[in-house]
Amino acid sequence: MRDFSLDHRWLSINTATVRAQWRLDRIIDECARRGIRAISPWRDQVAAVGLDAVARQLRSAGLELSGYCRGGMFPASSPEGRRSALEDNRRAVDEAKALEAACLVLVVGGLPGALAGRPEHKDIAAAREDVRDGIAATLEYARGVGMPLAIEPLHPMYAADRACVNTLEQALDLCDALDPAGSGALGVAVDLYHVWWDPKLQQQIARAGARRLLAFHVCDWLVPTRDLLNDRGMMGDGVIDIPRVRGWIEAAGFAGYSEVEIFSSENWWKRDGGQVLDTCIARHRSAV
Amino acid sequence: MRDFSLDHRWLSINTATVRAQWRLDRIIDECARRGIRAISPWRDQVAAVGLDAVARQLRSAGLELSGYCRGGMFPASSPEGRRSALEDNRRAVDEAKALEAACLVLVVGGLPGALAGRPEHKDIAAAREDVRDGIAATLEYARGVGMPLAIEPLHPMYAADRACVNTLEQALDLCDALDPAGSGALGVAVDLYHVWWDPKLQQQIARAGARRLLAFHVCDWLVPTRDLLNDRGMMGDGVIDIPRVRGWIEAAGFAGYSEVEIFSSENWWKRDGGQVLDTCIARHRSAV
Repeated sequence: MRDFSLDHRWLSINTATVRAQWRLDRIIDECARRGIRAISPWRDQVAAVGLDAVARQLRSAGLELSGYCRGGMFPASSPEGRRSALEDNRRAVDEAKALEAACLVLVVGGLPGALAGRPEHKDIAAAREDVRDGIAATLEYARGVGMPLAIEPLHPMYAADRACVNTLEQALDLCDALDPAGSGALGVAVDLYHVWWDPKLQQQIARAGARRLLAFHVCDWLVPTRDLLNDRGMMGDGVIDIPRVRGWIEAAGFAGYSEVEIFSSENWWKRDGGQVLDTCIARHRSAV
Repeated sequence: MRDFSLDHRWLSINTATVRAQWRLDRIIDECARRGIRAISPWRDQVAAVGLDAVARQLRSAGLELSGYCRGGMFPASSPEGRRSALEDNRRAVDEAKALEAACLVLVVGGLPGALAGRPEHKDIAAAREDVRDGIAATLEYARGVGMPLAIEPLHPMYAADRACVNTLEQALDLCDALDPAGSGALGVAVDLYHVWWDPKLQQQIARAGARRLLAFHVCDWLVPTRDLLNDRGMMGDGVIDIPRVRGWIEAAGFAGYSEVEIFSSENWWKRDGGQVLDTCIARHRSAV
């Protein structure tokens, strides 16, 4: 297992972590001057600055993308809705390619309309079929472009409105169905916040192996958790045994970045952005 | 599948549903006069009225107990803590027996201290070992008394502080390990709020079968959910396809009560208790 206590060369910052403080161009500058070598930006943050400008800035700063957030949101209650989701995912693939991202992360979507508070049906099995079909179609396009897709299982508390893929086992079953050869074109993003509780986590990480493990996200589960979406903790402040799971991940062959992704409306998003990044660096060394 | 639209003979009320409005003696009266045939009370509610008084009142009202809430909370960070949990579980078994409950429901516990906001360690695997050992010891006692134990898998968002058994598969693995013969002494409580999202739900309900299915709890998952603990919805107000899952449950051989268990600090707990019970009856007929 790599020793992270000496430096932060394997730290990546998911730019949602400081989205409340800075635009993406500032985030890139602040990361670069701290010797952070990788980020994972969100599409809306890229759009606010401009795709070409971001691509140029990344190259000039020498920053890599551990991933690009995000494709997905496949389920819809009409053929038009499904078609529109596929078009949007092709654009996301193209953007990820333009930014030379390691992978496009897929948050697959839940019940159509649920994220807006108006679920259009209650058939989660149907939503899961939409997801399988949507990934299959997007995979065909992404293979042509050479952009790996990383299915991110989300915590079951998001099954209705954000993602109906909720365990690593389920994500890997999808990978095996759609990419049986394990070509590297389809894999998973393991975000500890979403999967730390899973009694089959160690087993399924071993099953995934290096070909399927495309991204590794860290933060912490706070006790108590006060909000379902925006109360993620800094590594070390919660109850996830992060080094233990990183050991499993590395034993399975993953040797990439640990990407810090924290949504925190009442804490980290209210602090100075520089303090947040410095804390991410310190905790990456002491708690990851 | 039984037709629930005609009457509410298979409705049970988990008494947490109206705990903010009434003491247990009043709850029993209000249920009985509505023709509700079963309840599932909590230990603190029983203690507030007195065990013997409750037992007498139940007999005189002709009310059954679809379950008794609750045993469990096994993990501890010291031998004394584990011993104390076992003693408390034996008392819970005795109370369940005195009340002639169909089963004692086990909410198994999470990381020691986490429920009080002070987790004593981060080793969820160790907590799960405490749970296995605690159920094994309690099962030995409960077999002697003739009180079935129902392991309730809780939603993964409660893994840290309330229960580190989080899927039906995990609960059934425990049952198979501790009661391989399927004697009826150990089984599961399937609460839809906790398991509705599970991609393996149908498969695991079929695996459970009639010998392991000891209780069936219903409410609904609201979109959005505003609180991790006290924002459960009335059946029909959320996104769970309750009749579909009840179909699976009945196909597996379960023919008992559907127990309504709603925690709702901002809605149902603020309403008139009679209105809540009448709504439970109506929704049991229309949405379960």
